[in-house]
Amino acid sequence: MKKYCEMTKEELLSEKELLEKRYSEKKALGLKLDISRGKPCPEQLALSAPMLDLVNSKTENFKCENGFDIRNYGVVDGIPECRRLFAEILDADPDEVIVTGNSSLNLFYDLIAHAVCHGVPGSERPWGEDKNRKLLCPAPGYDRHFAVGELFGFELVIVKMNADGPDMDEVERLIADPSVKGIICVPKYSNPQGISFSEEVVKRFANLSPAAPDFRIFWDNAYVVHDLYPDGEKDYVPSLLRLAKENGKGNMVYMLGSTSKITFPTAGLAAVASSAENTADFKRMLSFQNIGPDKINQMRHVLFFKDLDGVLKHMRKQAEIIRPKFETVLAVLKAELGETGIARWNSPKGGYFVSAELLPGTAKRTVALCKEAGLTLTGAGSVYPYGKDPEDSVLRIAPTFAPAAELPVAMELFSIAARLAAAEKLLSEK
Amino acid sequence: MKKYCEMTKEELLSEKELLEKRYSEKKALGLKLDISRGKPCPEQLALSAPMLDLVNSKTENFKCENGFDIRNYGVVDGIPECRRLFAEILDADPDEVIVTGNSSLNLFYDLIAHAVCHGVPGSERPWGEDKNRKLLCPAPGYDRHFAVGELFGFELVIVKMNADGPDMDEVERLIADPSVKGIICVPKYSNPQGISFSEEVVKRFANLSPAAPDFRIFWDNAYVVHDLYPDGEKDYVPSLLRLAKENGKGNMVYMLGSTSKITFPTAGLAAVASSAENTADFKRMLSFQNIGPDKINQMRHVLFFKDLDGVLKHMRKQAEIIRPKFETVLAVLKAELGETGIARWNSPKGGYFVSAELLPGTAKRTVALCKEAGLTLTGAGSVYPYGKDPEDSVLRIAPTFAPAAELPVAMELFSIAARLAAAEKLLSEK
Repeated sequence: MKKYCEMTKEELLSEKELLEKRYSEKKALGLKLDISRGKPCPEQLALSAPMLDLVNSKTENFKCENGFDIRNYGVVDGIPECRRLFAEILDADPDEVIVTGNSSLNLFYDLIAHAVCHGVPGSERPWGEDKNRKLLCPAPGYDRHFAVGELFGFELVIVKMNADGPDMDEVERLIADPSVKGIICVPKYSNPQGISFSEEVVKRFANLSPAAPDFRIFWDNAYVVHDLYPDGEKDYVPSLLRLAKENGKGNMVYMLGSTSKITFPTAGLAAVASSAENTADFKRMLSFQNIGPDKINQMRHVLFFKDLDGVLKHMRKQAEIIRPKFETVLAVLKAELGETGIARWNSPKGGYFVSAELLPGTAKRTVALCKEAGLTLTGAGSVYPYGKDPEDSVLRIAPTFAPAAELPVAMELFSIAARLAAAEKLLSEK
Repeated sequence: MKKYCEMTKEELLSEKELLEKRYSEKKALGLKLDISRGKPCPEQLALSAPMLDLVNSKTENFKCENGFDIRNYGVVDGIPECRRLFAEILDADPDEVIVTGNSSLNLFYDLIAHAVCHGVPGSERPWGEDKNRKLLCPAPGYDRHFAVGELFGFELVIVKMNADGPDMDEVERLIADPSVKGIICVPKYSNPQGISFSEEVVKRFANLSPAAPDFRIFWDNAYVVHDLYPDGEKDYVPSLLRLAKENGKGNMVYMLGSTSKITFPTAGLAAVASSAENTADFKRMLSFQNIGPDKINQMRHVLFFKDLDGVLKHMRKQAEIIRPKFETVLAVLKAELGETGIARWNSPKGGYFVSAELLPGTAKRTVALCKEAGLTLTGAGSVYPYGKDPEDSVLRIAPTFAPAAELPVAMELFSIAARLAAAEKLLSEK
C-alpha cells in the first residue's frame, strides 16, 4: 500500500470511497463500545474478590500492629503494616509513607489544596498568594492531573515528552522562574504514552535546583507494578525520593501510588511517600481533615497481599488478562495503519494505555466519526493541558475494560475513522 | 453538706484535707483511664460486625441501582440506594444528598477548603480573598470544628449557647457584617452540651438574612439518630434544609451527617444534603478530587440497614450499651458534686457527651489533677475556639469508650479533682 501522503488526489478519492463503505458497514452494526477510560474489566476485579472476606464478623482480633482497633478512630497516617506494604511498592522507608483511602488523584488534589491554602515546608507564603503560579505539565499526560492544576489557578506549562521522559533541558530552564511551583508526572508506563523515565532523567529530577524554595515534584507512580510482561521486557524506574534525599533534596518530592488498578478502583488505598519533614507536615494537615483513614480496608489489603511479592503475584494474573487486549490493539493498528504513514503509536510494556499520534488535524474528526458509529474515545485534546492538543493529533486508547471479543471491531472502527479523517484532510489540501 | 462558697476558711481547710486523702488513695491505684474522646466502645463496634460479611467473594451481583459496578470507578455522588438512606436519616430529598466515605469532619473540611479556594454559589470571589473572614462558633462546641476554621484563616467568633441553641439575637446581629461567612454548629445533642436546638431557633436559622451573599450554615447533624432513650424522652430537630428552602434560602445550608458513631468510625460513610445548586457545585468539586467514593462500603451499609427503620433499630441496641454509662456518670456527679454548689452539668437525652461547668478558674487544675492520677480528660479550654475557655470552667466527659466497670472510679476521681481544685481556689481567695 502507498503511504497516504504519497497518494494522488484520485488515489485518495478512491481510498476515501472504500473507507466510507467500510465505515458505513461498521456503523450499521449499532455498536456500543467504550475504550475511553483506564478501567479494569470485571475479570480483573474478580481477582481481588477474596480480599472482601478477610475481615469479617468472625474476626477475633481487630488490633493492628500498634495496638489500635481498626474499627475505631485513630492512626491518621495508616496502620503500620500497610505503610510497610506501600513502602515496598513505592521503594521508600515505612516512616516516610502515609496510607489513606482511595485515590492517588485525591492525594494529589489534597496536596495541591494544602500548598495553595497553607504552603508546604520551605514556603514563604501559601502558594495561593502567588498570583502567577505555574505548574509544569509534561504532555501528552493525564487529563485529571491537568484539571486539578487548572482548578487551583495554576498556569499549566507544557513540557515536551521524549522517549525517555520529559525534556529535562526544558524543565531545568523553566524552574529558574520562581513562580514555577511544581511539576506533575507519571514516571513509569506514563499515561497515555506508556513511557518510563530513564535513570538519567530521574537523576536529573533528583538534582533539580528550582528558584522556588518550595518547588515540588508530584511523582504519580500509578503504574509502578503494572508490567504487561512480568517475565519479559519490563521497565525499571529508580526511587526518586531516595535519589533526591542523597542530594539533600527530599523535600522536593511527593511520590504517590495507589491500588486503584491493583484491587478495586475507588475501594482501594492510596499512599504518599516523602521526606520526613513533608510527611510530618502532611500528617498534621490530615489530622485536621479527619480522624483516620478506613483501617479495615487497609487491613483487608495487608491480609490479602502480605508483602510486595504478594502484590507482584497478583499483578501477574492481571497481566494475563489484559496483555492479550493490548496485543489485539497493537495488531489491528499495525494491520490497518501500519503502511498508511498517517499514524504512530507506542508499544507499552505496562500501564493502561496505547497512545496514537495521528495525522495532525485529524484527532477531533476521528473521535467524532467513532462516536457516530458507537465507539466512545476520550475527547481529542484531553491528553494536553486545557484540553487543547496543539496539533490535534494524539488520541488515547484504553484497552482494558472492553470485552476481549469486542476489541477487534472497536480497533478496526478506530483505524477506519483515523484513515477516513486523514484522507479527508489530505484531500482538502489538494 | 454546706455549699463550698458558704464554707469558712477552717471548713474549707478540713474539706481540702479530706479530699487530698481521697485523691491520694485514688492515685495509689495506678489507674489508666480515658474519658477524653467520643469513641464507641468495642461492644458497640461489635453490633456492626455482620455488615462486614454482606459484600463478599460469593457476591454475584456487584451492580448498584444505576447499573454501575460498585467495584469500579464512577458515581462520584454515591450510589442511589445509599443517597436514599442518608436522605431519610438527614430528612432531605435523595437528589439533594451526596454520600462519600468517612467523615462529616472531612466533608466540613472539604467544603471550607472549596469555599476558601474557589468560592461557592453566590460568592463574588473565593473566601480566601477576604482577609478578615469570620466564622461564627457557638461555644462550648467541638474542638475539631474550631481547628478547621482556624487552619483556614477564619477569625473564630464565639456565640453564646443557650438552653435551646445558639443565641440567635447575637447571630442575627453578627451576620450584618459581610466578612462573617458562616456558622458551624451541631444542632442535635450538641457536642459537648447535649443541647438540641428548638424549633424556633431552627426557624430563625432558616430565615437568616446575612450581609455576605455566600454565607453558609454548616449543620453537622452528627447525632441525628443518637437517642439514649428511644422509647422515652428524645429530642426532635426539624430539617433546616427544608425550612430554608421554603424561604428560598436553600443555598445557605449544608447539612452533614455520618455513620461514624452508627457503624465504624473511619470505616463509615458521610453525607451532605444541600440545595440543588450547592449539590451540583460540590459534585463538580468532587469530580476533580476523585473518581468516586468507596461504593463497596456504601453497599455494605445499604444491605445492613436497608432504611431508616433499620438504622433506628440498630441505634436502639447502641443505646442499651451506652445509656447505663451516661447514667453512671450522672449518678456519680450528683452524689459527689450535687451539694457542693461548685458544678453544673447537663443530662443529655442523646449524643456522646456530658458537659460539666465547674467553679470558674478550676477546669485546668482539675484536668491536671486527673492526669496525675491516671485519668485522661480532653484538655481544659478545648470546647472553646483557640482552646481558650474565658472562664476556665467547662470540661467535657465522654462516657462511651471506658469499660462500664471503670467508669464509677473514673467519675469519682473526676469529682474529687473538681472539688479539690475548687477548695484550693476558694482558699486562695480567703
